[in-house]
Amino acid sequence: MSSELSPVSGFEQLRRIESSKLFQGAVIAIIILSALTIGAKTYDVPPLVERSLSVLDNAITLFFLVEILFRFGVCQNKKRFLFDGWNLFDTLVVIGSLIPLDNAEAVLLGRLLRVFRVLRLVSVVPELRFLINSLLKAIPRMGYIALLMFIIFYIYAAMGSMFFADIDEFLWGDVSIAMLTLFRVATFEDWTDVMYDTMEVYPLSWIYYLTFIFLTAFVFLNMMIGAILEVMGEEQNAKEAEKAHDERDEIARQLQAVQQQLQELTRQISERK
Amino acid sequence: MSSELSPVSGFEQLRRIESSKLFQGAVIAIIILSALTIGAKTYDVPPLVERSLSVLDNAITLFFLVEILFRFGVCQNKKRFLFDGWNLFDTLVVIGSLIPLDNAEAVLLGRLLRVFRVLRLVSVVPELRFLINSLLKAIPRMGYIALLMFIIFYIYAAMGSMFFADIDEFLWGDVSIAMLTLFRVATFEDWTDVMYDTMEVYPLSWIYYLTFIFLTAFVFLNMMIGAILEVMGEEQNAKEAEKAHDERDEIARQLQAVQQQLQELTRQISERK
Amino acid sequence: MSSELSPVSGFEQLRRIESSKLFQGAVIAIIILSALTIGAKTYDVPPLVERSLSVLDNAITLFFLVEILFRFGVCQNKKRFLFDGWNLFDTLVVIGSLIPLDNAEAVLLGRLLRVFRVLRLVSVVPELRFLINSLLKAIPRMGYIALLMFIIFYIYAAMGSMFFADIDEFLWGDVSIAMLTLFRVATFEDWTDVMYDTMEVYPLSWIYYLTFIFLTAFVFLNMMIGAILEVMGEEQNAKEAEKAHDERDEIARQLQAVQQQLQELTRQISERK
Amino acid sequence: MSSELSPVSGFEQLRRIESSKLFQGAVIAIIILSALTIGAKTYDVPPLVERSLSVLDNAITLFFLVEILFRFGVCQNKKRFLFDGWNLFDTLVVIGSLIPLDNAEAVLLGRLLRVFRVLRLVSVVPELRFLINSLLKAIPRMGYIALLMFIIFYIYAAMGSMFFADIDEFLWGDVSIAMLTLFRVATFEDWTDVMYDTMEVYPLSWIYYLTFIFLTAFVFLNMMIGAILEVMGEEQNAKEAEKAHDERDEIARQLQAVQQQLQELTRQISERK
Repeated sequence: MSSELSPVSGFEQLRRIESSKLFQGAVIAIIILSALTIGAKTYDVPPLVERSLSVLDNAITLFFLVEILFRFGVCQNKKRFLFDGWNLFDTLVVIGSLIPLDNAEAVLLGRLLRVFRVLRLVSVVPELRFLINSLLKAIPRMGYIALLMFIIFYIYAAMGSMFFADIDEFLWGDVSIAMLTLFRVATFEDWTDVMYDTMEVYPLSWIYYLTFIFLTAFVFLNMMIGAILEVMGEEQNAKEAEKAHDERDEIARQLQAVQQQLQELTRQISERK
Repeated sequence: MSSELSPVSGFEQLRRIESSKLFQGAVIAIIILSALTIGAKTYDVPPLVERSLSVLDNAITLFFLVEILFRFGVCQNKKRFLFDGWNLFDTLVVIGSLIPLDNAEAVLLGRLLRVFRVLRLVSVVPELRFLINSLLKAIPRMGYIALLMFIIFYIYAAMGSMFFADIDEFLWGDVSIAMLTLFRVATFEDWTDVMYDTMEVYPLSWIYYLTFIFLTAFVFLNMMIGAILEVMGEEQNAKEAEKAHDERDEIARQLQAVQQQLQELTRQISERK
Repeated sequence: MSSELSPVSGFEQLRRIESSKLFQGAVIAIIILSALTIGAKTYDVPPLVERSLSVLDNAITLFFLVEILFRFGVCQNKKRFLFDGWNLFDTLVVIGSLIPLDNAEAVLLGRLLRVFRVLRLVSVVPELRFLINSLLKAIPRMGYIALLMFIIFYIYAAMGSMFFADIDEFLWGDVSIAMLTLFRVATFEDWTDVMYDTMEVYPLSWIYYLTFIFLTAFVFLNMMIGAILEVMGEEQNAKEAEKAHDERDEIARQLQAVQQQLQELTRQISERK
Repeated sequence: MSSELSPVSGFEQLRRIESSKLFQGAVIAIIILSALTIGAKTYDVPPLVERSLSVLDNAITLFFLVEILFRFGVCQNKKRFLFDGWNLFDTLVVIGSLIPLDNAEAVLLGRLLRVFRVLRLVSVVPELRFLINSLLKAIPRMGYIALLMFIIFYIYAAMGSMFFADIDEFLWGDVSIAMLTLFRVATFEDWTDVMYDTMEVYPLSWIYYLTFIFLTAFVFLNMMIGAILEVMGEEQNAKEAEKAHDERDEIARQLQAVQQQLQELTRQISERK
């Protein structure tokens, strides 16, 4: 706080700024402003507003560039900063915004990268970062079920395009189109229209759809239950272990007191021999 | 019960009336009658019935006014009465019904306020009040997930209106319309029609829809599981703590008895020295 | 088994027949046959088959009549037999089948009552009876949530028919039609078509639909979680109580042994005084 | 590893090959290649590619034949090999691929059997095999609920085809078509269109649809909750039992120490008499 210990306190002061509520709030506000300008561009706006929007956009890009350099500057462990996934993501989004928007393709790419700026909200708000991390943790546990689901889809799609391709080229043309159609059936979206069409040629094709719906619903249901149980098991284990440990401690402490009293008694009796 | 202690007993008697089953039942009956008159007005009814309905409506308004003044009168803590959310809600609905219905706009507003009278059922039946309170408690815990969901919707809507605005102005015109369309996709309501339209121009746009559906479904699923676990955790904690406490008490009581016996024994041996 | 103790053993033998696997199996087979004849009548069958079907139908009615009289006869507690819900249901279905099918209305009613014969499968198979009983037990716990859901539907329906009746008489004509339309919206069935229609007149009416969908989904989600927790709580309580009791017994038994040993020791020392 | 003990080590070496990561990986790669060729055939491919695809197909069939004979050869318990469901499935799929594809019907059947080759992935990857086994275990516990669901469907279908057959022959023609229509209603797929049609003749037929939707949703919900609870109960039981056992062991061990100390003390006092 005093200006005597200048180099250290200067660095310390910057770090204090970086972790201050005000600075965090300002960054969040700028990100929301950035999101709003992206949204505003999708409306038909008068040329004046459009020009001021692109000025604002450049200002936001500059702010983000300064902010990321500042955060990198005050970070003590530079290497760890670069290897953190969230910082890497922030840096990529900011660098992406710097690409000059000359030709048509670059404009679209640049605008797309600007959209991802909104995701910076996740990297800045700790609660959202925690949420995303816990969602990412849930992915591997669903991996094999997803593979099983894919196998079911693939087999049904291969069968579907084998039998129904001549009925409706648009829905069953090849195996990838058939998989999309089956995903549609799995979401119950106009699935009866798809079925009634094929039932005209193959009257028993309702078996195909019903077994598919039951299989996917059944696997999905079990996946959900499995996921709930797995997470719960972990939570429970931790809690149970802690509780059991506390109880054992309590019992052990009291039993040790009893054993000490007995030892004392034995010693007294021995002495009196 | 005797008329000797007149001012106190008079007040007490009124309070007894207010909390009596009969009074509560009457209020509930009048609220249901009010709901029925609101419903009846949506039918084409002969002028005579319509006129008697508005007479009934005025009678109900008067009853509600008298009831709320009565409840305010018998309440001992006037300040607490006013700051209670349910009473405030009741008062607003009753005052709203007093607005004279002269011009067309006021008529609609007045009728709208009369609809909310049905909600008074929630404020009068304690079980419903308890239910609403427990639902309100669940809102904050879902706050950050809702924010995350909103960010996903916003990013996809911005991308959607960027790429698909020229294909279908009605569905992808600007970012807010695109968000409504995405909500429709999330409910699986004719989402394939939306997709097939854009796939004609961008054949790979199915990636956009499938990733969106997987993301929202995945986040929603985790939200549900999280909510179940959180509530269960609380319940469990309370129960576990109570049980562990009971057990510890039991063990402690018995161990203390053992320790007392040992002390007695030690004392006896010491005395005999 | 011997014919000497004729009246008792005769009655006993009948009871043994009633509770035998063979008799139960025969009843189940006849019920399934009855279900098949009901199903067969919905097809266009040649007159000969139709005539044999009605002969079969009469035979089944006769069998059911004999069966229920037989079951009533062998039941020792006649009063309890009549007050049992399942028996009452069986009796009503059988009596209903005896109504002569003369005029058109009676035919339809008679056929309808014959359909309910299939439900006798539930009353005969103990596992299904157990399932139904446990489902019925779940109804009261969902009562107040159902009431809350109904209030939400009623308020939205009243508002809907107030504002949208002029837009689409078929969907929003009066409060009961509006409730049906809202149920359709709640099942996501072509809800956007309903919304787009009203948005042409009231551009902000999407708020009406989205708040309704969120409210019903939110209340439903909480109802589901609540139901899961309540059932689980009961199960858990029973298990926990049993376990805690077992543990306490174990500890108490061992501590009593310690106390007995101490008493014995104290007695020995006292004796030596 | 040395070639001296030739016959034993030769057999052992083959077994080592069979259980090696490399061999397993090769089999998985060939299965995926087989899946890709099946998928590729659904596209319109030039004749040259088509011919090379059928050469590849024959090579894969040969590989699978050699692989299954090899696995049978190295298996020590031949009887157990044949009675294992997964091996039986593999053998059937491979034998099915050997059928010569001469006439049109055989071609379709042969292609169909080739599709099921993809399922060999499940029999080869242990994690997927474990998943399928645990899914199969869940089937019986849902048996009676499925039967109850079927009874509900059958009764409603019988009623539906009784009343609505004249309105729409295509949807309610006979009891089996009506069941398919009811399944459609249960998935909320354009169910209002079905309802509006019948409401024109029977204005109260919405009761039929709403009770059906509530019944199926309610039974399904309870089935889900039941399944979750049952699985959880098992998991919990196992965990609780283990934990209780551990705790009891701990307490027992310490109490035994106390009892031993007391016995020692009693012995000492007795000796001193």
